[in-house]
Amino acid sequence: MVETIQWTDAGVVMIDQTRLPRVEEFVTCTTYEEMAHAIKTMVIRGAPAIGVAAAMGVALGVLKADPAQLDAEFEVICSTLAATRPTAVNLFWAIDRMKKLYTSMQGQPIEALREAMVKEAKLVYLEDIAINEAIGAHGAPLVPDGKTVLTHCNAGALATAGFGTALGVIRAAVNAGKNIDVFADETRPFLQGARLTVWELQQDNIPVKLITDNMAGHFLKSGRIGCVVVGADRIARNGDVANKVGTYGVAVLAKENGVPFYVAAPISTLDLTLDHGDQIPIEQRPSTEVTEVFGVPVAPENTQVENPAFDVTPNRYVTGIITEKGVARPPYEESLPRLAQE
Amino acid sequence: MVETIQWTDAGVVMIDQTRLPRVEEFVTCTTYEEMAHAIKTMVIRGAPAIGVAAAMGVALGVLKADPAQLDAEFEVICSTLAATRPTAVNLFWAIDRMKKLYTSMQGQPIEALREAMVKEAKLVYLEDIAINEAIGAHGAPLVPDGKTVLTHCNAGALATAGFGTALGVIRAAVNAGKNIDVFADETRPFLQGARLTVWELQQDNIPVKLITDNMAGHFLKSGRIGCVVVGADRIARNGDVANKVGTYGVAVLAKENGVPFYVAAPISTLDLTLDHGDQIPIEQRPSTEVTEVFGVPVAPENTQVENPAFDVTPNRYVTGIITEKGVARPPYEESLPRLAQE
Repeated sequence: MVETIQWTDAGVVMIDQTRLPRVEEFVTCTTYEEMAHAIKTMVIRGAPAIGVAAAMGVALGVLKADPAQLDAEFEVICSTLAATRPTAVNLFWAIDRMKKLYTSMQGQPIEALREAMVKEAKLVYLEDIAINEAIGAHGAPLVPDGKTVLTHCNAGALATAGFGTALGVIRAAVNAGKNIDVFADETRPFLQGARLTVWELQQDNIPVKLITDNMAGHFLKSGRIGCVVVGADRIARNGDVANKVGTYGVAVLAKENGVPFYVAAPISTLDLTLDHGDQIPIEQRPSTEVTEVFGVPVAPENTQVENPAFDVTPNRYVTGIITEKGVARPPYEESLPRLAQE
Repeated sequence: MVETIQWTDAGVVMIDQTRLPRVEEFVTCTTYEEMAHAIKTMVIRGAPAIGVAAAMGVALGVLKADPAQLDAEFEVICSTLAATRPTAVNLFWAIDRMKKLYTSMQGQPIEALREAMVKEAKLVYLEDIAINEAIGAHGAPLVPDGKTVLTHCNAGALATAGFGTALGVIRAAVNAGKNIDVFADETRPFLQGARLTVWELQQDNIPVKLITDNMAGHFLKSGRIGCVVVGADRIARNGDVANKVGTYGVAVLAKENGVPFYVAAPISTLDLTLDHGDQIPIEQRPSTEVTEVFGVPVAPENTQVENPAFDVTPNRYVTGIITEKGVARPPYEESLPRLAQE
């Protein structure tokens, strides 16, 4: 399995997710500005991976910052990275974590601070892999044997430091000997399902079929889907889930057809400061994502577009939220804060 | 507004709907085989337009057939055209209509028969425009003023002889002075929404925004959609509706959010021989439609695909079926046969 993101002596190396699967090209970021650009343009994407990238971006910034004006530069580093994408809360979680460490080291020598920031960023990376494996272990028993799992977007190794959240659950179920296959929604406009999820699962020899997003209902009605598993970009205290646009539709169609709908996400995706999902900011992305596919126009010139990158699935459609600490069940107002404190 | 299909002295002239909107190119069919190919490859598509094309294809076949073996050739003409696409019942309806005329003229001179077949095909065309205008007149009062209408696929002038079914309702509502705009689902994999619906509505200066299919739920939940109007490829006696894949998902999401969901279709789209929608054959189309966009690959090599071209929306999600004879309401088992007999 390819490495999504790695800290190296040459900089932070990431596979360019805008070019997969046709081109396997790596991008190296050596400054926090380059990292902010990579996050904004979705060279790296997926909430947990964005968290890792942000932590590494902060570390890159501190490494290069002028020690004479470190506090001021640190503020700019953090605010620049925080301004890249508004919805995934893992971005802010990772920056806050780096900020806390920075604050706790006030007055220490610059070399010690730099070393500690790099070590912390690498720790965020390593912890994320362990978290995904724990999510997989908790989620695998929920996957019905002998059926198809439907997933939307890419919540796989490419969306995390490795293993994946939703695809981690699928990998763990396969590793546990379950006989399953996967239907991947292509996930327009960015085609994460077609480009990334199919590619990842092919590499692991997990049987996968690609469908367009609008076929999900047809197959949920057909009875061949055993469960839906998706990732999340932010989860409110009440269990409302912001995830890639289209998730809400899949969730409603799953419920309508009696198919369990699971969200797999680390505790860092929880935003306990928000009472409900309507408070989650939804990123609007450029219209060319909709009007063009790999630069090829698919609509007339001057086409007006709406392009919300995420939607919010109300908690009543969510069967369970699979975290590294266990599976939260309704009522989420009680189960989520309890899990987070464990 | 461009002509979708026209009978001319040089043959049947159609705008090539596989190439719109980037290229406005016309295709001329002079034989029934060419017409069958055009229907199969979706140079012309949309249930009512397929009906017109099939009628004209039969007429082309009779014009060129060997009078010495006319009966045998007529059978081949009809069966070839009938084998092009399985779901839209208008295809079979139009062929049956031409067959009935053919049978009724047994023993008449070949010149009279040829003239009558061409005249009948032209009549199917003219009637379809009148039918669409009647559908528009019945449907316009149902469209809420000051809101957005959501449509899926293209049920416009390009899907008919002219004016359109679903887009005919929208055109009639605009003509009646209603202040509405349209959200067009792009409708993967063939992108009829992005390529055809947006193009058609732009030409009529009806405000339209393009969204990806998976955004429909987000906007149905937002409260800005006043109603959904779509076309149909086949409607069972009980009101179950086969239409472009994704229609079922939109219908469920509309109901979940209290948004009326209307189907606009001519009586010729009714198949009163089928008790319910599960009996409607669903066409499976080539996988390259999903794995490529205008020839550009969007998935890894050797990607496995499902590509059902249609889905079935159970009658409980359908608020009303708008026909040229009026609006059918539940229970459709009663209202549809009654309307058909009027």
